[in-house]
Amino acid sequence: MEKLTASIITIGDELLIGQVIDTNSAWMAQELNKSGIWVRHRLAVGDVWEDIWKALNDESAQSQIILITGGLGPTADDITKPLLNEYFGGKMVVDEGALANVKHIFEKILQRPMIERNLRQAEVPDVCTVIPNKRGTAPGMWFEKAGKIFVSMPGVPHEMKGMMTDAILPAIREKFHLPFIAHRTLLTAGIGESFLAEHISAFETALPPYIRLAYLPNYGMVRLRLTIQGEDAAAMNKELDEQFAKMRQLTAEWMVIDEDLTLQEALGKLLKTRGKTVGTAESCTGGYIAHLITSIPGSSQYFKGSVVSYANEVKEEVLGVNAATLTTVGAVSEETVREMAAGALATLGTDYVVVTSGIMGPDGGSPEKPVGTAWVAVGNHQRISTQRFWFRFDRLRNIELTATNAMNLLRKFILSDD
Amino acid sequence: MEKLTASIITIGDELLIGQVIDTNSAWMAQELNKSGIWVRHRLAVGDVWEDIWKALNDESAQSQIILITGGLGPTADDITKPLLNEYFGGKMVVDEGALANVKHIFEKILQRPMIERNLRQAEVPDVCTVIPNKRGTAPGMWFEKAGKIFVSMPGVPHEMKGMMTDAILPAIREKFHLPFIAHRTLLTAGIGESFLAEHISAFETALPPYIRLAYLPNYGMVRLRLTIQGEDAAAMNKELDEQFAKMRQLTAEWMVIDEDLTLQEALGKLLKTRGKTVGTAESCTGGYIAHLITSIPGSSQYFKGSVVSYANEVKEEVLGVNAATLTTVGAVSEETVREMAAGALATLGTDYVVVTSGIMGPDGGSPEKPVGTAWVAVGNHQRISTQRFWFRFDRLRNIELTATNAMNLLRKFILSDD
Repeated sequence: MEKLTASIITIGDELLIGQVIDTNSAWMAQELNKSGIWVRHRLAVGDVWEDIWKALNDESAQSQIILITGGLGPTADDITKPLLNEYFGGKMVVDEGALANVKHIFEKILQRPMIERNLRQAEVPDVCTVIPNKRGTAPGMWFEKAGKIFVSMPGVPHEMKGMMTDAILPAIREKFHLPFIAHRTLLTAGIGESFLAEHISAFETALPPYIRLAYLPNYGMVRLRLTIQGEDAAAMNKELDEQFAKMRQLTAEWMVIDEDLTLQEALGKLLKTRGKTVGTAESCTGGYIAHLITSIPGSSQYFKGSVVSYANEVKEEVLGVNAATLTTVGAVSEETVREMAAGALATLGTDYVVVTSGIMGPDGGSPEKPVGTAWVAVGNHQRISTQRFWFRFDRLRNIELTATNAMNLLRKFILSDD
Repeated sequence: MEKLTASIITIGDELLIGQVIDTNSAWMAQELNKSGIWVRHRLAVGDVWEDIWKALNDESAQSQIILITGGLGPTADDITKPLLNEYFGGKMVVDEGALANVKHIFEKILQRPMIERNLRQAEVPDVCTVIPNKRGTAPGMWFEKAGKIFVSMPGVPHEMKGMMTDAILPAIREKFHLPFIAHRTLLTAGIGESFLAEHISAFETALPPYIRLAYLPNYGMVRLRLTIQGEDAAAMNKELDEQFAKMRQLTAEWMVIDEDLTLQEALGKLLKTRGKTVGTAESCTGGYIAHLITSIPGSSQYFKGSVVSYANEVKEEVLGVNAATLTTVGAVSEETVREMAAGALATLGTDYVVVTSGIMGPDGGSPEKPVGTAWVAVGNHQRISTQRFWFRFDRLRNIELTATNAMNLLRKFILSDD
């Protein structure tokens, strides 16, 4: 059967002028994929009537489902609703449910008086089905035309996600006969994309046409995703598992985890399973590792805290790093990260610690220690292991790479601790 | 004269399946805007020959400049180069400069042997102008057809930025007669978008047609951007400054800063100017504030370090919070953040400190302290100021909002310290 495809249209000048990063499309695409729907196009247009109108025409000529975000706010540049009203030949009416919702938000939650433009958010074209917004004021709108589905949602990520999860995806799944789609993903580290491709090229060439392999970059690591599509869930799953097992064997040397988890989730799982705790002592990563770890719900089970010793005085006074070490070999050295590790284990009282000290750039480099140099230490109360890295990107990317490589080093250390 | 428009086409399945967030388009759009070029469309297509070909046709029918990223890697799904070769009727040849670059990267930087697919990265269609890649292996390609410019670049952000800055934008500026475009941006906090719009609606309506006002969300704050376009730089700047001054006066009550800076940049500027230092003591934000601050180059001038006291033991042992306080009123309380602040000032030895403790969710809430409750303290050795917030989003957004509101509270505290 023919693949069901979707287009995602994001409306808003703020996207076109680069003010806002589009995270909605990525999330929506992942969710659609899980339901067996392939995103063919993602298009960003400005708050420009002609461009939005043309996009609706163009995309519905290609895709069966057109998801539209943005332009539903209360300000003058929000024209999505009047445009959709005209596009589908409707008449604006007040939706009682939406009105009650807007009133409730202003009276009970924001505790602020409403103004007329807030009330207008409760108006909808009479030719749509209203999708309630449980997380904000603007209701979503579902339209159908010539067998195609058009859904308009707010651009606010939290609100869009609520609507997609609670109402839109279930309605789409009910309306269409969807193929079965499944993914299996594994994460590799320490091998370049072209080498990985070369290494598994025979495997890739032998894959049947209904199984797709994607190479996905991930903070300096490479994620491999196998996707199968078909009618029979059980048969598809079985075949996918077989191919995935082959791929896992081929990449065993570099495989970090064989699930679609981030490194911080994988680390969390490992620590939770073993009932162990971790802390960090960070200089150049400035708290980023702590942030990645604590972005995972439930991390308080295994994460106790960090010392971000950005200045040398803090390395000395809080972590007990020797002044002599800092003067002789400097903060960015094996000696210093070893001492930071010992100090952090004592101060934080955790089973494990991960430590970073480096030069993230753009300034601060020298011939001996160029920009991108990063020393990492991981350890427990019995032993400490160190490694030096050299990254060659910009500040933020160097920080990201130092953090992820440090977490991967910790993961390997914990596994070798058996 | 007619506005010069550009379309951005990003090629890659990883974008359509939502694996990778598109940050390139936002950056490119901002840079194009600075040169007076308006982005009309942003389109993401998969590694699908027909879709890419159609996109090239459609976009060049509308825009004068078509920027293409992605699909130039060494793996089988990278089809951009052969497609462009056919689209522009060329013949593949080895570019000596690109070849030397690829060899250099593998021999000197990666210190790994090359394989044939890496060498193929040095091949280009003979009908293009090669754009050197100083940060990676794949060269960029500049094509011209029927008065339109098509530029193909790698999707790796660091490499794309290098090419755009060093070669592509200068070449575009040289080729076209560009209108003068200028922006002035101010950041507000503490007022909802609809209220802000209502408050400045008379001002907005009175703006001439060549000045555009955009409402831009920013971590729970609202950024207002005025954009002017015209021929005479001096006259345009003068008029923009006049309008901006009016807008600044109207929004004085909520204005955080009148420059296009992030809060962490604005904070850094403030501390640097006054020669002061700051540290953080974070519980619920888990190091995120420290990360935001240290993401700015040169932050070591004013940032000394942090204690991420995620567990109560760390609050007690490292920051000296009283066990009694934690048992009676709990970690998420005014008392606790005051004690964390005092402890952090002593431990880190900074002039100022910013402190957070809260419940970011999804779990951990209670009727008295629901999910999203956050206590913030800011202070110096003379006084400490506290505030409680309640955020109603998901974990990551609650962390973001706590962090930015805490930094804004610190900023106001520093300003009131005169």
